Amino acid sequence: MITVHDHGSIRELRLSRPPANALSPELLAALHEAVEKAPDGGARALVLSGAPGMFCAGLDVPLLLTFDRAGIHAMWRALYGMLRGLAASKIPIAAAITGHSPAGGAVISTYCDHRVMAEGSYKIGYNEVRVGIPMPVAIMRCIALLVGHRQAERLCVAGLLLPVSEALSIRLIDETAPAEQVVERALEWCRAITALPARAMLRTREAARAELVRLMDEGLAGELDQLVESWFDDETQAHLHALVERLAQKKA
Amino acid sequence: MITVHDHGSIRELRLSRPPANALSPELLAALHEAVEKAPDGGARALVLSGAPGMFCAGLDVPLLLTFDRAGIHAMWRALYGMLRGLAASKIPIAAAITGHSPAGGAVISTYCDHRVMAEGSYKIGYNEVRVGIPMPVAIMRCIALLVGHRQAERLCVAGLLLPVSEALSIRLIDETAPAEQVVERALEWCRAITALPARAMLRTREAARAELVRLMDEGLAGELDQLVESWFDDETQAHLHALVERLAQKKA
Amino acid sequence: MITVHDHGSIRELRLSRPPANALSPELLAALHEAVEKAPDGGARALVLSGAPGMFCAGLDVPLLLTFDRAGIHAMWRALYGMLRGLAASKIPIAAAITGHSPAGGAVISTYCDHRVMAEGSYKIGYNEVRVGIPMPVAIMRCIALLVGHRQAERLCVAGLLLPVSEALSIRLIDETAPAEQVVERALEWCRAITALPARAMLRTREAARAELVRLMDEGLAGELDQLVESWFDDETQAHLHALVERLAQKKA
Repeated sequence: MITVHDHGSIRELRLSRPPANALSPELLAALHEAVEKAPDGGARALVLSGAPGMFCAGLDVPLLLTFDRAGIHAMWRALYGMLRGLAASKIPIAAAITGHSPAGGAVISTYCDHRVMAEGSYKIGYNEVRVGIPMPVAIMRCIALLVGHRQAERLCVAGLLLPVSEALSIRLIDETAPAEQVVERALEWCRAITALPARAMLRTREAARAELVRLMDEGLAGELDQLVESWFDDETQAHLHALVERLAQKKA
Repeated sequence: MITVHDHGSIRELRLSRPPANALSPELLAALHEAVEKAPDGGARALVLSGAPGMFCAGLDVPLLLTFDRAGIHAMWRALYGMLRGLAASKIPIAAAITGHSPAGGAVISTYCDHRVMAEGSYKIGYNEVRVGIPMPVAIMRCIALLVGHRQAERLCVAGLLLPVSEALSIRLIDETAPAEQVVERALEWCRAITALPARAMLRTREAARAELVRLMDEGLAGELDQLVESWFDDETQAHLHALVERLAQKKA
Repeated sequence: MITVHDHGSIRELRLSRPPANALSPELLAALHEAVEKAPDGGARALVLSGAPGMFCAGLDVPLLLTFDRAGIHAMWRALYGMLRGLAASKIPIAAAITGHSPAGGAVISTYCDHRVMAEGSYKIGYNEVRVGIPMPVAIMRCIALLVGHRQAERLCVAGLLLPVSEALSIRLIDETAPAEQVVERALEWCRAITALPARAMLRTREAARAELVRLMDEGLAGELDQLVESWFDDETQAHLHALVERLAQKKA
């Protein structure tokens, strides 16, 4: 589900779960593990990439609709845990956002150190509300660290999907590049950051990201039960089933 | 003092206290009550509008200068309480800033979910300091949630009144529209937000706005006595009396 | 080390330690004292300026490398204390950034009320990491109050030095002016701010800056030992010695 491509001391983790890199519990676990193990394997920075045109479509809703309460609880724990893992990574992570990046895709990029997005008619955003899922609180707070309190409110409440240019203008992403150069730009950012005095850079980074880690720990301790309750709410279930129907019709 | 105009399930509350929609205790109470009661009457979103050319001029200083300590205490309690009511509203509120919006006018719009301002030579800003009133702390903290800590400091300490274009560039407002279309644009925003899955949107909104509510509760619990003291300070009284004189001369 | 130039009730404190206004313990103490004493001498605002082309080069590393642990501890205490003094100043301070402003130079300007920077090919930024020093945590938190959490992370982790235009676009500085007018523009800002109702302005300012003071108190109470440890770390020492060698070669 994740293919590993080493570029010298920079490791690219490419999400490889066709067709849309939808997040299953297995992919969440694989990503979490790959991020945690990378430094032991000698990697000094990570690039997190997706497929051309599709970085990550977010949660695998058709799969998750087959889960019971215990399965959904495990999924939220795996998602929050993986995001905490990104936030607490011992080495910097650049997101190479190779295409569309809705919902969970945008969320994953939020926890990276730097975001390069492909130019083109791609969208990125936190559209959870549009598919009936209240935005998880800990995640919304982390989004506020990235774009400020007001933009986090605006984006999450309305579930907006932004074109690349608007994402750049509110600094939801850090830079854009032609699609075929997104991974290379992310690698360049990694090369530059790892060329700095290592301890000074890593300690500064750890301090800067401590609040992300703290917020996810708080979320893991206090939000999982409510996330499960909310998932099985009638409104949410109705919207998720409608979404799955739309996806099925699209495929057919 | 407030006229109600229902547009389907969206309720417009129009400040209607000529000539300038200055905030009296009665207007504060009426607005507070109208906002709180709207959901029971079936409204799913609110538009808060003013008069053409004048959204709201802020506190009714000539009236308030006739008040004793108890009256000023009640006024601050009513203002903080009304702002808390806006922050905690069960349904989204769009401000249709139909014209000038100094001091209390800008403050009211700060607690709405979305701000549309009329194009033209109107001004908006927190100019309390210019009329001798230290910016209330809880309000300044809520302004920081909207525009960030530094811009809140810059705007409030210097008591700046901004032209529409600068207000937009620092995102003190969200969008502009020709004067005659401001209410309609605010209605459109309400239509779009209420077309989303309701529970998901409302819970996300509640979480995003919880800090506004918390800050106002903190202010209600701890700031009122000091606000009263400050109101009767010699410097403040001198500036307020000078303001009233200027207003009287303008009228004459 | 500091020359005082009174312009009516506005006092200019000009950093005057050639060739680069590098921060020695004596300069830190002199600046701290000059800021604290200014109001008693009748000053109603301060302009903090540097030399043409060089506002302040940051810490005097060649000097500090001759210090033992006790000396480095005293230096960090003096730096944190001086920054706290800027944050808690009873009167507003405008930074007239007359030229380059790396590391400690940029940090000093962060604690002023307003920043005017000279147009030209000057750089400003928090490049501590590039010379091997982890960014002090309390300072990074104060930078986040100025430019937001994400920009503070981006700037500090990569140790970026920004051209004037980019510093302006992320509002690390408030305005720019031709080099020969920077001090005059800072004076104008001081004249405008001191023309406002004094008590209202000063109390609003104190409330807005309370968090800066709190963060520095927290840093003074909890970070000094670790800053000393970090200074004597092998990586940091190696980078600082390499820096001193480069400076010596440049001079020769």
